[in-house]
Amino acid sequence: MNNLSEDFPILQQKVNDEQLVYLDNAATTQKPRAVVEAITNYYYHDNANVHRGVHTLAERATAQFEAVRKKVAHFINASSEEEIIYTKGTTEGLNWIAASYGETFLKPGDEIVISYMEHHSNLVPWQNLAKKKGAVLKYIDLLPDGQLDMDSAYKQITDKTVIVSLAHASNVLGAVNPIAEVTKIAHLHGAIMVVDGAQSTPHMKIDVQALGIDFFAFSGHKLMAPTGIGILWGKSELLDKMPPLEFGGEMIDWVQLQKTTYKKAPWKFEGGTQNIAGVIGLGAAIDYLESIGMENIASYEKTLIANVLPEMLNIQGIEIYGPLDPEKRTGIISFNLKGLHPHDVATALDMEGVAIRAGHHCAQPLMEYLNVAATARASFYVYNTVADGKKLIEAIKATKEFFNNGIV
Amino acid sequence: MNNLSEDFPILQQKVNDEQLVYLDNAATTQKPRAVVEAITNYYYHDNANVHRGVHTLAERATAQFEAVRKKVAHFINASSEEEIIYTKGTTEGLNWIAASYGETFLKPGDEIVISYMEHHSNLVPWQNLAKKKGAVLKYIDLLPDGQLDMDSAYKQITDKTVIVSLAHASNVLGAVNPIAEVTKIAHLHGAIMVVDGAQSTPHMKIDVQALGIDFFAFSGHKLMAPTGIGILWGKSELLDKMPPLEFGGEMIDWVQLQKTTYKKAPWKFEGGTQNIAGVIGLGAAIDYLESIGMENIASYEKTLIANVLPEMLNIQGIEIYGPLDPEKRTGIISFNLKGLHPHDVATALDMEGVAIRAGHHCAQPLMEYLNVAATARASFYVYNTVADGKKLIEAIKATKEFFNNGIV
Repeated sequence: MNNLSEDFPILQQKVNDEQLVYLDNAATTQKPRAVVEAITNYYYHDNANVHRGVHTLAERATAQFEAVRKKVAHFINASSEEEIIYTKGTTEGLNWIAASYGETFLKPGDEIVISYMEHHSNLVPWQNLAKKKGAVLKYIDLLPDGQLDMDSAYKQITDKTVIVSLAHASNVLGAVNPIAEVTKIAHLHGAIMVVDGAQSTPHMKIDVQALGIDFFAFSGHKLMAPTGIGILWGKSELLDKMPPLEFGGEMIDWVQLQKTTYKKAPWKFEGGTQNIAGVIGLGAAIDYLESIGMENIASYEKTLIANVLPEMLNIQGIEIYGPLDPEKRTGIISFNLKGLHPHDVATALDMEGVAIRAGHHCAQPLMEYLNVAATARASFYVYNTVADGKKLIEAIKATKEFFNNGIV
Repeated sequence: MNNLSEDFPILQQKVNDEQLVYLDNAATTQKPRAVVEAITNYYYHDNANVHRGVHTLAERATAQFEAVRKKVAHFINASSEEEIIYTKGTTEGLNWIAASYGETFLKPGDEIVISYMEHHSNLVPWQNLAKKKGAVLKYIDLLPDGQLDMDSAYKQITDKTVIVSLAHASNVLGAVNPIAEVTKIAHLHGAIMVVDGAQSTPHMKIDVQALGIDFFAFSGHKLMAPTGIGILWGKSELLDKMPPLEFGGEMIDWVQLQKTTYKKAPWKFEGGTQNIAGVIGLGAAIDYLESIGMENIASYEKTLIANVLPEMLNIQGIEIYGPLDPEKRTGIISFNLKGLHPHDVATALDMEGVAIRAGHHCAQPLMEYLNVAATARASFYVYNTVADGKKLIEAIKATKEFFNNGIV
């Protein structure tokens, strides 16, 4: 996979006179030419509003728009494309589950269970829902290496639990959670299982039926697709029971002055003109990923991390968060250097052309749990190479020297 | 403005062996090269997630993303860019006003006033809100020519009214509503004034301060910008009082396990990764429109309609809906041909390369009000020409002949 970066014009540039090494993939990924060209092609040949038109462009646009729904269903092994709802991204998907399913079915005293490693988008919607409905929000503990504490999962999930919602993979620790196992516990107690797939879907084969879960949300922009498009998958029998949230064109069946009936799912959730070009781009991104193969991507990234992680651990004064076994993690490496603020580390690395992120990564409760204010985070994707890992390590070492010599 | 269409590659194609004449602009508009190239340029040079990064790409992306907020504020003469909220489109913007402002401030017995000409996206959200809060939804009548009946406005808006929400321009009738005048009535009674700007913003200079209104929503894709991006403008003092709706990254100030504080507007409404490329494309579309001049666009379109409308009226058996005076309407012409179903008309026109729409145009209560099941709708934009209008009329005449001769 060494030549993959040639498909990504953005990666060919220099930043601060150094060859760009882009390691901020957990925030957003770069787009291959095939995705950008799919968008351009759509706008230059087929652009029209979907569903509502009988003219040629509208029919072409509608066919492409609905074909991607099928493609996505296949990509995550949904049982039907009618379970695939287009959203803005993971955040909107998770919020919709809370606002539609949660507000409809939660009663005072019911319990929602999440974990300490959740991104704010899988935490604040539940906190807000719990407050609104008089429900209780509970947290599953983590093991010292950042993995989910299954003993704690068994304790926290009880017959009072109505919703369990977990990240498939942590955006800070890289830890991959045993979703199928937790789902069994949730279902034993009659709770539904919601999964935040933002950090897993780009990196491994997703099979929502094999996981046994009830809802799954992910973002396009983290898997080479455009910004502003994401997917909410839900089991048909649950989607059918849920009220729509955004009212407008195309989601209705019949509107009278004082009463409206709605279409069936997924269309009842898709009010107004959708991000059509974003959908087309998502289709092209899935084609690109599948041409490599999701299993190949997963194993390539494991090799990459197995190569980088031991060398990073060798750096004096470094602390790395999350499990160290490449089998238990994705390509996200969060770390701190003793005595240095992660923002300074990220700024110094940028001077070397290495783009990483620093901050709380939208996971403040986890930062508190780890007892740090912030971390630096390097996150790899399939277009990154062993050479990129080496450059990261060199740049970290150079940064350490730079600050220790007191030049700043 | 005759050569504008050269900026739009999509308009250069043939459809059914005829030169494409695109007259479905009220559904969505075509994108000039400048907009598509802005997106490509962003993905090939600057793509990164905004706000959260210190590396070079993230800083470039953030600067561009926030610069468009300023550009939009200037485009609609908002008093500050902090009043500009990025949305998916008009539908989301209107829904957010109902779900945030409406759910917070409406009490049982309060009244919401809209009109019979509203698009479902400015009708169903209020219907749903009224039902939820025990409020009453009232309708302003129309005059026989499809203009808003101001006598009815004076009657329907009372001291019980809390929200008045109107289309700035109808998506079926083309009628432009006297928003400033209705706003004065609304404010006299202490109600807020919400405006659906989907069909006006592409075609005239918008000045939210001169209109005196409280909220304004519009879509990018109807003014040459990408799909999946829109704007909700609101007065700061109202936005400050409104709770956020989508919880997640970037909209928070501080998250604890059981409590969260939020950023100020507009950022508290923008949870999760936004449609960054869509925002960049919106900026390029505004640049393109402003390089022509919104006043020039308005007067060009009036000339176009003044040219087309009298010839259409000459067609025997045609019925045209909405005011006939070009000063009182936009470039939307809804019509029916006696004895022909509008879907058949649209299909026949497509055979001649002319793309129009047919249906209820997401305005079923208006269809009932007009006592029709559906209409055909030709909608012009600034890249259309007098020749396009002539082609439309020829195609309508050919369609009439075709069906009347019973060849089908």
